[in-house]
Order: sequence, then structure tokens, then C-alpha cells
Amino acid sequence: MNGKRNICVVVASRANYGRIRSLLSALQANSNINLQIVVTASALLYRFGEVIKLIESDGYNVSAKAHVVLEGDTPSAMAKSTGFAIQELTTIFDFLKPDIVLTVADRYETLATAVAASYMNIHVAHTQGGEVTGSIDESVRHAITKLAHFHFVTTELSKKRVIQMGEDPSRVFLTGCPSIDEITNTDLQVTPDLLEKNGGVGATIDLNKPYLLVLQHPVTTEFNLASSQIKETIEALNRIKMPTIWLWPNIDAGSDAISHELRSFRETENPGWLRLHRNFSIQDYARLMKNCACFIGNSSSALREGAYLGTPAINIGSRQFNRERAENVIDSHAISSEIEKLIRIQVSHGPYASNPLFGNGNSGLKIAQILSTVTLGSTQKVFHDL
Amino acid sequence: MNGKRNICVVVASRANYGRIRSLLSALQANSNINLQIVVTASALLYRFGEVIKLIESDGYNVSAKAHVVLEGDTPSAMAKSTGFAIQELTTIFDFLKPDIVLTVADRYETLATAVAASYMNIHVAHTQGGEVTGSIDESVRHAITKLAHFHFVTTELSKKRVIQMGEDPSRVFLTGCPSIDEITNTDLQVTPDLLEKNGGVGATIDLNKPYLLVLQHPVTTEFNLASSQIKETIEALNRIKMPTIWLWPNIDAGSDAISHELRSFRETENPGWLRLHRNFSIQDYARLMKNCACFIGNSSSALREGAYLGTPAINIGSRQFNRERAENVIDSHAISSEIEKLIRIQVSHGPYASNPLFGNGNSGLKIAQILSTVTLGSTQKVFHDL
Amino acid sequence: MNGKRNICVVVASRANYGRIRSLLSALQANSNINLQIVVTASALLYRFGEVIKLIESDGYNVSAKAHVVLEGDTPSAMAKSTGFAIQELTTIFDFLKPDIVLTVADRYETLATAVAASYMNIHVAHTQGGEVTGSIDESVRHAITKLAHFHFVTTELSKKRVIQMGEDPSRVFLTGCPSIDEITNTDLQVTPDLLEKNGGVGATIDLNKPYLLVLQHPVTTEFNLASSQIKETIEALNRIKMPTIWLWPNIDAGSDAISHELRSFRETENPGWLRLHRNFSIQDYARLMKNCACFIGNSSSALREGAYLGTPAINIGSRQFNRERAENVIDSHAISSEIEKLIRIQVSHGPYASNPLFGNGNSGLKIAQILSTVTLGSTQKVFHDL
Amino acid sequence: MNGKRNICVVVASRANYGRIRSLLSALQANSNINLQIVVTASALLYRFGEVIKLIESDGYNVSAKAHVVLEGDTPSAMAKSTGFAIQELTTIFDFLKPDIVLTVADRYETLATAVAASYMNIHVAHTQGGEVTGSIDESVRHAITKLAHFHFVTTELSKKRVIQMGEDPSRVFLTGCPSIDEITNTDLQVTPDLLEKNGGVGATIDLNKPYLLVLQHPVTTEFNLASSQIKETIEALNRIKMPTIWLWPNIDAGSDAISHELRSFRETENPGWLRLHRNFSIQDYARLMKNCACFIGNSSSALREGAYLGTPAINIGSRQFNRERAENVIDSHAISSEIEKLIRIQVSHGPYASNPLFGNGNSGLKIAQILSTVTLGSTQKVFHDL
Repeated sequence: MNGKRNICVVVASRANYGRIRSLLSALQANSNINLQIVVTASALLYRFGEVIKLIESDGYNVSAKAHVVLEGDTPSAMAKSTGFAIQELTTIFDFLKPDIVLTVADRYETLATAVAASYMNIHVAHTQGGEVTGSIDESVRHAITKLAHFHFVTTELSKKRVIQMGEDPSRVFLTGCPSIDEITNTDLQVTPDLLEKNGGVGATIDLNKPYLLVLQHPVTTEFNLASSQIKETIEALNRIKMPTIWLWPNIDAGSDAISHELRSFRETENPGWLRLHRNFSIQDYARLMKNCACFIGNSSSALREGAYLGTPAINIGSRQFNRERAENVIDSHAISSEIEKLIRIQVSHGPYASNPLFGNGNSGLKIAQILSTVTLGSTQKVFHDL
Repeated sequence: MNGKRNICVVVASRANYGRIRSLLSALQANSNINLQIVVTASALLYRFGEVIKLIESDGYNVSAKAHVVLEGDTPSAMAKSTGFAIQELTTIFDFLKPDIVLTVADRYETLATAVAASYMNIHVAHTQGGEVTGSIDESVRHAITKLAHFHFVTTELSKKRVIQMGEDPSRVFLTGCPSIDEITNTDLQVTPDLLEKNGGVGATIDLNKPYLLVLQHPVTTEFNLASSQIKETIEALNRIKMPTIWLWPNIDAGSDAISHELRSFRETENPGWLRLHRNFSIQDYARLMKNCACFIGNSSSALREGAYLGTPAINIGSRQFNRERAENVIDSHAISSEIEKLIRIQVSHGPYASNPLFGNGNSGLKIAQILSTVTLGSTQKVFHDL
Repeated sequence: MNGKRNICVVVASRANYGRIRSLLSALQANSNINLQIVVTASALLYRFGEVIKLIESDGYNVSAKAHVVLEGDTPSAMAKSTGFAIQELTTIFDFLKPDIVLTVADRYETLATAVAASYMNIHVAHTQGGEVTGSIDESVRHAITKLAHFHFVTTELSKKRVIQMGEDPSRVFLTGCPSIDEITNTDLQVTPDLLEKNGGVGATIDLNKPYLLVLQHPVTTEFNLASSQIKETIEALNRIKMPTIWLWPNIDAGSDAISHELRSFRETENPGWLRLHRNFSIQDYARLMKNCACFIGNSSSALREGAYLGTPAINIGSRQFNRERAENVIDSHAISSEIEKLIRIQVSHGPYASNPLFGNGNSGLKIAQILSTVTLGSTQKVFHDL
Repeated sequence: MNGKRNICVVVASRANYGRIRSLLSALQANSNINLQIVVTASALLYRFGEVIKLIESDGYNVSAKAHVVLEGDTPSAMAKSTGFAIQELTTIFDFLKPDIVLTVADRYETLATAVAASYMNIHVAHTQGGEVTGSIDESVRHAITKLAHFHFVTTELSKKRVIQMGEDPSRVFLTGCPSIDEITNTDLQVTPDLLEKNGGVGATIDLNKPYLLVLQHPVTTEFNLASSQIKETIEALNRIKMPTIWLWPNIDAGSDAISHELRSFRETENPGWLRLHRNFSIQDYARLMKNCACFIGNSSSALREGAYLGTPAINIGSRQFNRERAENVIDSHAISSEIEKLIRIQVSHGPYASNPLFGNGNSGLKIAQILSTVTLGSTQKVFHDL
């Protein structure tokens, strides 16, 4: 197609987009590349903040949309959505004929992307390989590594792990995470209208006074505990009663249970300290993280962007088990008294020093440069014995 | 369920069944285990010899059948079949509620099985991990390893690789391959009615005289070459004109092209030396391998069962790239003159000494024993850094 | 199966269940029948009130659940959900082996049920055939009639239409609608705790004072107007400001747009007159209809149960186009001023006389009786020329 | 799109293509129309003669291909293929954005096409509505009529039936069948190389001497009898031993059973009178029908094209039950002695007079003209009471 290389990036969620946007920008600016963006899964859904609108308002053309989420909040529904995503993405790749498909991190849509492209003899590029966590994401991330041809990793340790798994060292690139690019290029002051322009319901919050930020997802491998786990967090925060901005959880099994608890609590207690949001622009999310008194939950952003921003954070439960982190994060069990105590400690401590563990601001450019020039031969992979 | 452990084995192809049957027998005989057999993919299909009939005539109860093959002979169709298989197997696992799902080797149905069970928080057991090959199977096999909880490997080197990939060494079991059990327990004399009772069309062949055995599959990552590659083999054999028993290829993309070439050749040339078969019973296949003058193609059976049987074999092309093998195998490019020359060499050489590289006859029992007693806790996996 | 006839009823939504429950009761009580209940689509979903919990608390055993809703709020997502439902229901029918599958009314899950059963050579029974409406439901309902073997219709006119379409008159049974059975057998007084025990959020409403009841779904064939249409209704009600109980819409394409408008309105205006509910028990819904000052929207319940209850009702827009109705219903365009005016007229008018147009209270028993005794021969249908 | 109307024709089988090709030609020649061709189902498959190659060699551009056939030869597999076809066609229609989708006759892919387009608010045009047959096709055809907006019927009686079913008489067009156009525009002399250039295996047949033509499909509603039914036909023909050209059956459930019987018979008996073909060009098929001594089987072509060609035909079993036909057809039960006797009668009788029951040669042009000019308003359908 006029000699340009077709690079197809699949964006599947709010989290995906923040970890890939600076790369999209670099790919779009590269004259050797024809950028194709496929938006799928929760990134299309109203319940999850319609990330597609963010993407389009950021000026990107979307080549195709694939609705693949089987509604149901059960592990089985996640499994079936994976299957359906493989089917839909295959059809889309047949239309778009990408030379390389890039997939982000560790979700079921990420796995579906890698499976579809692999069987179609399309080269697969993967970001965030070699990191470890809890949840099913741990298995899935490494399975994707074993399907992928090019690995863009964020830390030295991740690089070591990807190579340990038998990947060709010459195809493992330590580039850092594009999510850090967003932070280094953004004025991180909060503006008075920040909350309002991002929608949301509940309390009016003055961002110039101390506030908390919460994002807690279900843990798929502890699916049945989603409800009781979130109750502990709610209870801790209801004792502290500091103004709190709370994001609805992602779409993993257990999400409805969490949403149900939040909604019940809000209707029953009508808490004056709670404000709920579906989504923020990437920059506004970074601003909120930079300026909050403490971040609470189990989102990887506490560890990742939080390291660079120096955000005091409480990491609850097993979802980020064993993941690399800077000194800004304190682990807590899902027990309200422990969560409460640790929040108070982090609020007292205040901001931490910035730590460039996951990148220092030019990852998108580095990845785009490699994607535009790396040799594309056979898709046959070969195991590298150590 | 009366305290028994539900072990669900998914059988997806002719090759699968031979590599798992002695294990099925051992599981069925184990009073702590409730054996569930799911038959799927080409194992259900007439075009591929209806392996299900073998399974039933061997006395096994089939718990569920899942038709998942999207007919089409293209890489896209394989990808979509994978997606569909995930959906169907999820529904079946919801009905059967297995404690452990066991999946064999490296095919798309194997991957689908592992993905479905993983997202459903069911323990996954996998045989044949850590082996290396060509084709998409190479990537898929290792991706399955990263999803699986228990690994039953066949060689020391495979064990080393599975552990290298970050798996828990205490869950990697060197048991050998159940396919070798079949050989050690079978009288390997051919009987006069062997061919006839297994169906087949074409020449009448006297198995007491020298004959060749051929099984050559498409290589998915070289999908477009399937037709030209098989022509080279046909040409070589048409020069040798020794009585030849030829099995139709498996269902991978490229299979129709191979079948078409075989069918055309047969109709046009009416070769007196060629007999075509869809399937053999496991024992009869072993008998044919044991007694043939040379095995030709790219089936793993040449390397695996062939090692133990000492079968002189020509391994054509990249499909078994880098795979461990004994001295009975000679590699050839897909070039008719080279194939012809090497066949003549192997026929002259005659049988090789038996090599127990892939097992020595009690693998099924060992695996069943472990499956019935291994501790089943959380399905959360943890990466083991070397 | 002990000589009993397997009757499988597929329940797919809130509306379905109310139109079928008295039949379930009669089937369960019939000693010649083995009742199988399959719950699917929105009847499983939290967003739509988890009708499955109602079913289970009513004492029915659910044989299988099928998550089939592809989340997306677009016509394409509805189409794909139909396809997915066919696949899932086929697997379930393979397990359950029903002699007859009964499907209700006109939704995509209803069509999926009829298609799956038809191709599997299972007899299909259908309720509510021959009625006419707007929306895609109009086409779908009649398509189902042409797939079904037994027709349980609710009015003389419906019976005439089903026969006109070429169905065998001896298989068209005028039984009335089981939804009327619910009303005739229920004490229709509201109790003080009725709203609270059914959940809901928003205003506290005294049911002994005049209140309105609203249920307005999207019209799939006018999918892009869902948002503007609901705004007209909101505006009309915001002028009247009578205490109002509002049910969230069903799952058809456009549903998210309606929910979004409702949610926005509530957050922005904080209206003291509005209470939102996901679901009611069947009896409580009948009580609310019986006692409301006016029913507003486009639900068929206004025409159907409303006829028997004498509920003053405003029917907005095209969704019930041409449908039979009693004198209790006044049609309105989707224009706020017209809606407002007509509500005021209906509130002044007060209750209408009861009209047994759609049944008189023993439909469930009649249908169960026929299903248990009707001859089941070949599934081959034959067109009856008039 | 430059003001042209997008007309999308879905071609799903060998039979489809013959009944639609003259329309494709007329649509392509119409300057107000942008023709989109989607090829799907068995029309893509090698086992069924790869009709797609015919389409492309006839000079048509194919806009999209959709592999939708779940291999399996069971009613359940047909049901699931229907579901899968809905999903795939929806994605394709999302890309192609047709104004009208045209679907042919009565197969599951036809139903899938109508369902997908209906839910997407796309106008549906249908050919061959109002005809009656046996098999599941009978139900499916009429269900499609109830989903379709424009009906192109072939006989007065069909027109009457479509209108009886409640369709708008102004949208029912008696155009005849485009398959007759093919015959009237073709030189129907057989050429000496006709058989050879269409492939085929088995006997060499001189078309200038009397020969028989056979095409017998499974009857889905008698799925379990496929094998025994075809044996009767084989037996009858094996007694007559006149040179016979036999086409493999279509893809409906039971097809593998028929193919298996044919293949077994050929291998066992090596009959000198039998030649098997997967496919013929449309013109060559017409030539073979015109010149055969008798046509045997249950294909609709015996009734349809056979009427115009005056082909002596034996119609076996229930598949064409009640269908309109000319005097050239004699019905037979699936009993070898009856089939044999009737073949001898038809061979003695010789050709019948031509009967224009299903069209007289300009149907394609008429349909194209209507499609290019008919008013396209709302997709909402309205039932027309008689």
C-alpha cells in the first residue's frame, strides 16, 4: 500500500489507551507508517466511559470497531468474550491486512489479538511483557509473550524475564512505558473545572484541598470475593470521610458486584464525601494522581505512573502481587482497619520523590522508530535456550 | 460428586488420541477419579477418520462433543475455529465442572481448551510442553505452557525448557509420552487383514513385502506452499514406486490443497503403488510404523514413536524444526530428488536400534497417579525467576 | 426419560417472564411433563434486574443459563447477539433433548430459539403469534410464526392472522395470554413497603396518593431517535411533577441512550418526583399498574394487562403501531406537549372498565394441557393455502 | 457514494449462483447501482466445487468472503452455522453499508442474511418467496419472506402465497426466475470436452449417447435416513447401468452420509457407468439437463429449469413436496424398484415440451430495474390483513 508499513494498534480499554497514546502519536507522525487503529471491548462501551470518544476527540481515525463483550460478569462470559474477540478481530485483520499488530499488556482482548494475528501469520508486537501480577492477567501476559514477535518492555527485570522465557534477545527492546511520556509532557496543575468537564456524579470536590483517589478492580482468580473485598475499602473510606474521587472498575468478572456495592452504599448512605466517575482524559487522570493525598485500590497505575509522579498509594490485595514498584506504594490486605491505618500514614507522609522505574518520557518515539524499521521476515518463531 | 476428582480430557485429533489413550485407561481405572472425555475438532469429522468411533469402540464414554471446525482451509478459518472452540468448550466445562482439564500438545483446540479453562479458574494440565517444532504450533505450545498449572513432559530437555519459561519446578513432571505405552504393550506383528479392516482405497498391498508409509501435513506458517511441497513428495515416490500407504493430512490450513494434489495425482496417473487411508487404530498404526521400510513426511510420530520403534524415517521441511530426535530420522528439504535419494538410503539401512528418548512404557500410569493426588489450591500462577 | 414429555421454556427478559409464569406453574404441576427452563439474555443481567433471581425465588429449577448479550447498544450488536444465541441454545438443546421448545413473543432471543430448535428438528411452540406492532419485532414475530409448529394466540384477530399466514388451523389455539392469569389470581392492593422491597433509587413515593408509572423502550427501527424521543417524555413529566415510578428500558439498541438521558436528567435536576426501578415482581408490577393514575410509555403491558386492569395509558410513538387495544389506551406522538396534555386527560378520566381482550385467567392451564397431549409427529411443516 | 445505490447480493451455494447470475449481470450493467457481491458458505469450499472460482472467472469482483460453515454434518452444526453466519455477515454489512441486501431462496445462509440485515435496518430483497417444498427449507423460506421488504417471485401461485402471508402487494413482483434467463441465452448443444473441462472422476462418457444425470441431496427433516435413501437410488441405477453423471450433494446435514455411500459403492463395485462431479459451469449444467435421457434425484432444478428444458425427471422423496412443477416430472418414493421402473418410463418417453412456468428469460433485467428505482423509505414493515 504505497510502500508504507501497516501498523495496526488494538485499543481495548481505558487503561490500554493511556499506555499507548504517545505511541499512536509517534506512529501517526512517521511517514513510513500507515497507522490503523482498532477499538474494541470496553473501550467502546458507555458503562466504561466510551474511551472511543476520547480517541476520536484526540484526533485519531478509527479503522474499525469490534463489539466483543458478552455481558455477564462471570468467568465464563470472559472466556466466551475472548473467543468472540478472536473471531471479530480475524475478520477485521482480513480487511485491514496489517504488517504488524500491536497489542497492549495482559487482558483477554490482548490475548485474542495475539491469537488471531498469530494464526493469520501476521507479526505481533507486545508492550508490557515480562511484568508479573496477580489475577489471570499473570498467565495471560506471559502466554501473549510466547505468541509475540517483538517485545517492548518497561524495566530491566521485565527484559530479563522475557528473554528467560526463550524469546530472541534481539527482539526484546527496553523502551519504557509510553504512559510515562504522557506525564512528562503535561502541565500537572489541576484546574477548577477538571471534575465537572469529565462528568461524574456525587459530591462537589475542591481539588485544592486534600482528596483521595480510588480505583479498585475485581481479581478474576478471586472472583467470588469481589463484593466482600470492595466493602472493606468502602468501610475504610467511610471512616476517613475525606473527599474522594472514585472510578468505576473495569469490565473483568466481578465488576457488576463491585458496582452494585458502590451504588447501594451511595443510595443508602448518601455519603457527602464521594464522587463517582466513569473516565478521565489521560492528562486529567495524571493531574489527579499527581495531586491526590493518597491513591487507594489495586490499579497498576499506582505502581507505574505513581512511581514517576511520587503518588502516595495503598495497593490492596493480590492483584499486583510481586509487581515491581517504587517506594511510593504500601501493600495492604483487603481489611478495612488496615486500609484505614495505611491511608492515614500515606496522607501524613505526603508526596514521594519521582522514580523513573517504568520510563522517562520518550518511549512512544522509541517504539515507533523500531516498528518502522525492524526487519519483517518469516513469522516462524524459534525458542532460545538459555 | 462422591468426593471423586473430575478430570476432563479433551481429545481433538487422531494424533491427540494416540498420545493420550494409555492415560485415559489409567484414569478410568483410578477409583479416585471421575473421568470426563470431551471430543472435538477433527476427531469428530468423517474427513479425518472419525476418531470418535475409535474412542467409543475402545470402550470409553464420551461426556460431550463439540463441533468447532470452521471449514475453509485458510489461516483465518483456523483463527476463527480457535475462537469458536473457546466458546463451545466453556459451555461444556460449565456443564461438566471439571477440577482439572487436561489438554494435549500444541494445536489450536489445545490452546482453546487452555484459554477457556484458565478464565474459568479451572486447573489446566498439559502434556508435551517444552518441545520445539516449526509451524505455528511452536508458539502455541509455549503459550499453553504459560497458561497451564501442571506439566507432563517427555524429555529432560523439555523439562529444562518449561522450567526456564518461569514455571514452578515442583509442577513439572518428567513422565515420558503415553504414546510409547501403546507400543510397549502391543504385539507389533502385522496381520494379513490389517489394511482392509481399516478401510482405505487404492492398491492392494502385501505387508510382508517392503512398503513405505507417508504422512505429511501442511506447515501453517508456509501455508501458501502446501501444494508445491506435497508435489515434491509425490514426485519422489512416483519414481520409487514401492508399495506405499499414505494417510490423508490433518486439518491445518493447507490441508485441502494437499488432498487436492493427492486426489488429482491418483485420478490422472492411477498409480498401482498407492493406497490411501483416513485413519488406523492406534495399534495398527504402530504396527505399520514398526514394519515399514521407511516413513516419509513431517509427522512428529516419525521422531517420537519412531525413536522407540527404530523406524527409518525421512523428515521433510520445517515442521519438526529443531525437535529432539533419535538417530532414525534424516532431514530432507522439500525437494523431490533429495527425498528420493534419502528414501533409498533409509530403505537400504533398515531398522534402527530402539531409543527410549520419549518414554519407556508407563507414562499413562504416572500421569494418572499425579493427577489423582496433586494438591489443588488457588489457580493463581506465579512466575519463577531463574 | 420415564415416558414424560420434555417441555423446554426459554425465558429471555422481564417481559417474557410475566407472560409465561402461570404456564410454568401449570407445566410443573402436570405429571406428564418434565419442565426444563432455560434463562438467557437480559433475564440474566444485573442491569436489567436479574429476572433469574425472581424465577428462582418463585421456586423454579433452572436447567441452563445462556449469556448471549453482546454489549453495545447498536443494531449490529443485536444482530450478533441473535447469532450467538442460536449457537448457545443449540448446545443447550443438545444437552437437554427437549421434545418441544416454547418461545415467547417477538424478541431476537425468541427468534434465535425458534431457529435453533427448527434446524435441530425439535417442535417449536410459540405464544403471542399474529399480533402486530412497530419496531423490528413486527417482522421477527411473524418470522417465528413461520418456523413454529404450535401457536398459542391471544385474540381472535391474532388467530385469523396466523391462519392467514398459511399455518395449519388445527395447530392454532386461542388460549389468551398467561399474563392475564397473574392478574386474576392476585390481590391487587398495594402495600406500604412495595417500592422499598423491590429496590429502586430516588424519591420516596406514597402509593396511596396518585402516581404515574413509566416504561418506554427504544424503537429499533428508529434507533437514532432514542435519545430525542425519551427527552420529550422526560420533559412532559417534569412539567407535571406528579410522583412517578420509572422503569429502566429493555436491552434493545438505543437502551443506553435512554438510560444516559435518564441518568443525566436525574443528576442535573435532582427531581423530587422521580423514582427509578430495575424490576418488580410480577404481582407488584400488576399492583402498580392497577393503581396508577396513568401509565406512560410504549410497553405492550399498557395494551395487554392494561386492558384487563383498566389502566389509563398513554402509548407513545410507533412501537405498538396497529396493535389491538381496549379503550384504556390513547396514542401520542413523541412530543412533550402532546404527552403532557394526554396524561392530564387520562389522570382526570380515572380507571377504565376491565376488558378481557387478551384473556380471562386460565391461559396457562389451557396451554399446558395442550402441550402435554398434542400429537408430535414429523417436524416437517406444510403451507396451508387459503 | 457518488449517489449510486449499493445493492449487496449474497451468494452461498452452487444452486444460488445459477439462480442469480443473470441478475448480477444486469445489476453490474446498471449505472445507478454499485454492485457488492458477498460469497459465503459452501460457495467457498473445495468440497462443493469452489463456486467462487466460477464467479471470479465470470468476471465479477467479490467484495467479501465469509467462511461460516461449521463442519459436522449434523442438524446442530447447521444451526450453529446459521448463528455464525449472522455474526460474520453483520460485520461485512457494517463495512459495505448496502442500501439493499438481496438473498436467494431458502437456505440457512439465506435466513442468516435476512436476520442480519433486518436487525441492521437494511432493506432485504428476496427471490423465490412463496414456493413450497419439503425439508426445513419450507419453514425457512417463509420466515425469510416475513423478514423481507421486496419479493421477486417466480409464479402466480407463489405471488398469491406471499400476499396471503400478509406482505404488501405493491412490493411483490412477479418476475420469474433468473435461472431461466441462463437457458434462453445459451446454445444448449453439448461439446465433446464438456465433461473433461469440468473435472470429475470415474467413467468416460460419450454425451452423444443416452446418459442419466443425478443430483440427490439429504432431507434435513429426515436426517437419519440420508444413508438408506441414497442406497435405493444407487441400487436402481446399478441395475440400469446406463452411463450416469452424478453430482455430489450440497452441504446440508446428511451430506457426509451420502458422500460416504457413493464413495464406498465406487470403491467396492468399481462401476463402469458412473462419473462423479463436484460442479459444472451454469451453461454446461443446462446443457447436460437439456440432453440427458432422464434426470434423477430431488434437486429443484428438475422442476424449475427442467420445466423449461422439457427434461424427463424422476423426483425422489419428500424434498420437493407440493412444489409446482410441469408435466416433465414424475414423483417416486425412495424405493429402488420404483425408481428403476420410472427411469425406464421416462427414458422411453423422451423430451417433454418446454413450459415457461418459472420464467421466460428476462427476469434478471426486470429485478435489476426494480431494485434500482424502488422507493426506499423506513425499514418498518406492516402486516397486510386480507
